[in-house]
Amino acid sequence: MRIVPLLVTVSLFAQSPTWIEQYRPAADRLIAESQSSDFAWQRLAEVTDTYGPRLSGSLGLERAIEWAVETMQKDGLDNVRKERVMVPRWVRGRESLTLIDPIAQPLPMLGLGNSVGTSMNGLIADVIVVGSFDELDAKAAQVKDRIVLFNVPYTNYGQTVQYRTTGPSRAARHGALAVLVRSVGPIGLRTPHTGSTNYAEDAPKIPAAAIPVEDAERFQRLQNRGVRIRVRLQMDARFEADAESFNVIGELTGREFPQELVVIGCHFDSWDVGSGASDDAGGCIVTWEALRLMKKLNLRPRRTVRVVLWTNEENGMRGGNAYRDQHLAELKNHVLLMESDGGVFDPAGFGFTGPDAARAQVTAIASLLKSLGADSIAASGGGADIGPAGTAGNIPMMSHLVKGDYFLIHHTPADTIDRITPKQMSDNAAAIAVMTYVIAELPQRLGR
Amino acid sequence: MRIVPLLVTVSLFAQSPTWIEQYRPAADRLIAESQSSDFAWQRLAEVTDTYGPRLSGSLGLERAIEWAVETMQKDGLDNVRKERVMVPRWVRGRESLTLIDPIAQPLPMLGLGNSVGTSMNGLIADVIVVGSFDELDAKAAQVKDRIVLFNVPYTNYGQTVQYRTTGPSRAARHGALAVLVRSVGPIGLRTPHTGSTNYAEDAPKIPAAAIPVEDAERFQRLQNRGVRIRVRLQMDARFEADAESFNVIGELTGREFPQELVVIGCHFDSWDVGSGASDDAGGCIVTWEALRLMKKLNLRPRRTVRVVLWTNEENGMRGGNAYRDQHLAELKNHVLLMESDGGVFDPAGFGFTGPDAARAQVTAIASLLKSLGADSIAASGGGADIGPAGTAGNIPMMSHLVKGDYFLIHHTPADTIDRITPKQMSDNAAAIAVMTYVIAELPQRLGR
Repeated sequence: MRIVPLLVTVSLFAQSPTWIEQYRPAADRLIAESQSSDFAWQRLAEVTDTYGPRLSGSLGLERAIEWAVETMQKDGLDNVRKERVMVPRWVRGRESLTLIDPIAQPLPMLGLGNSVGTSMNGLIADVIVVGSFDELDAKAAQVKDRIVLFNVPYTNYGQTVQYRTTGPSRAARHGALAVLVRSVGPIGLRTPHTGSTNYAEDAPKIPAAAIPVEDAERFQRLQNRGVRIRVRLQMDARFEADAESFNVIGELTGREFPQELVVIGCHFDSWDVGSGASDDAGGCIVTWEALRLMKKLNLRPRRTVRVVLWTNEENGMRGGNAYRDQHLAELKNHVLLMESDGGVFDPAGFGFTGPDAARAQVTAIASLLKSLGADSIAASGGGADIGPAGTAGNIPMMSHLVKGDYFLIHHTPADTIDRITPKQMSDNAAAIAVMTYVIAELPQRLGR
Repeated sequence: MRIVPLLVTVSLFAQSPTWIEQYRPAADRLIAESQSSDFAWQRLAEVTDTYGPRLSGSLGLERAIEWAVETMQKDGLDNVRKERVMVPRWVRGRESLTLIDPIAQPLPMLGLGNSVGTSMNGLIADVIVVGSFDELDAKAAQVKDRIVLFNVPYTNYGQTVQYRTTGPSRAARHGALAVLVRSVGPIGLRTPHTGSTNYAEDAPKIPAAAIPVEDAERFQRLQNRGVRIRVRLQMDARFEADAESFNVIGELTGREFPQELVVIGCHFDSWDVGSGASDDAGGCIVTWEALRLMKKLNLRPRRTVRVVLWTNEENGMRGGNAYRDQHLAELKNHVLLMESDGGVFDPAGFGFTGPDAARAQVTAIASLLKSLGADSIAASGGGADIGPAGTAGNIPMMSHLVKGDYFLIHHTPADTIDRITPKQMSDNAAAIAVMTYVIAELPQRLGR
């Protein structure tokens, strides 16, 4: 997922306008229905248990997409369809990191997405630890023919992730053979975090992998003591030919303005570790649930509500770009784009980017979500998958926001359903359902 | 480590006897010296960073043993020596668990210590999940030619570990091909826990491995939904010829009764994952520190204080047995045996098994540790390594007790120094130093 600044504006003393009260009965029904069972959690369990992680180009993703189409049809959604997208197929393959000096020991690691591999036998080199790009540049002479470890403590995702994305090329320019990065996240339980790296055009492409915080700290201490650190890094990572994938779409056709679209969604692909439950199958199920709940309660709003499960967010964003390109003609009919891609924890509300009048309306709608703790509207909204269409069509954008320690498990083997409770699934689905329903039901289209 | 029941007797209103006050100045000096630096933590970092985990028969253990001997000599301890012990050499080798149905996916696992391996190509079989031995027996007919998963939620170590130790043979009697056990511990971050399994004589030896809680729960859900679960298990695990290892001993010779021994220690071997920091290098450093602190402060007590770093606790207990056999003649001179093998967290005090008069004395000594929160004396004491000598010699035994979530990281890759703070190392070393010093300094030998 990509990060949206979380500047929550809690209007403790603001009075909700009286017009919002007409929507409260429907809102309360949606909330009650969602909370009446663990349906959403069970659906998330079914998809993640059965298909596992869903990296672009994998069988798991394609089978999950087929399942989603079939299941949306069974739910009775309208116009269920797949839209073809060719996606990159990065393959991790076999990989390992082995400490050689000061002692032989296998170490936990995860190659970074998009990384090139090593030779079949791997490469053996000394490690040099740096704590910043400045230190890298200052030690340029010692970097050549070594493996650089960026040991940069996690502050926040946006700040620390640059070492993962741009570190490999920066080290390569100084002649490094490979890069290790301290995982981008708080300390876990010897937990490596993968995620994509982006090679610069003007630098050699060198293999890059993440190691747990614990191992980065150990390497730092060894270096500080003057102990030689030598490792063997082996990675089969490679790109294969692009693969066919699909965005999945389902709708609830509007009863009065069917051509006007309130579009909500998530990305259905994930990294190839864990089961992509928080990133982002949970987001898919809670947005999809919004339509299922409305359908079940016969709450068909004036405008069409569309759920989109985008493909290939993690390592290419081809799904979001394809959606923009394939829907250019109807972007003018997009009333709102909402994405859920921050995990499913306790609901917090939504971030919103759009005109002030629209902000006032969604703020009023959020007041219906007070019982869920989801009544905050933060200063900005957006998402990796809705960004291309939103920007091209100047469409108001919304992020689904939650309160949780997402970056403890982000892009790790621990991103499984076990971090999410049934109540969290139900509450977030309810919050999205209410927000979406009322926006689609307003007499006048949300301003843009 | 082995578990001692933790029945802490906190004597909130008990008055400490006045005789204890004569030891308070020495106790306060030991505490102040220990708390004056992060020496103990840095020493733990040095050993775990440099030598990694220390499985019996590994180069890491033998190099760590050499380092300990040299470092005890540098500390100025007396009679520093190694006592030879032949230890089993179980080798994990390459191992993997791969889900085949419902989707191909590599899964985290750790083979159990002492397990046999599979063939080089592994074995492929359906998985049957059971939640208890009763359920295993009830489903006996379905177990044959399958892999049994014991999915038993963790209650406490002593209760749940039986599925790891005896489960493989119980399943083998029904014709199972292999066993998976849900890791013995609370849920981590997709964290498998190794540990030894013990084959019964009358059952076929089948391969056995631990999987994380998350995967056990997933298998349970799949089975509950009627989904076929098929896996490939591959393990190279095997025993090689016994290897030479050593118990390491260092002493502070008593100034008045040098033949009388207060023996404190830990086990220096560990499992081959993590770095055995909590289990049990931390226990080794904090007991060893007791001697170093006394030496540094010129506090040489009446009796000899001996630290022993036992070898091969985890998969054989040969070190503790060898100590008993090699010291039979002097067991009568052992005043007390203390073991630290519960991790290093905030100190709690000590468990004690011995005569009532001695209990009253150690309870009084513990009152000197109030500032450390280490003034509780629990109902019983012991330890895997001190047990053989203690039983043979009818020697009072003491366990070093701490307050912490040890079983979250026990026998996992996350057993690293990162779980332990410098203050925890200093405080526990201080508590052990004071308890040991005063027992060794008492005018009359502790009763037995």
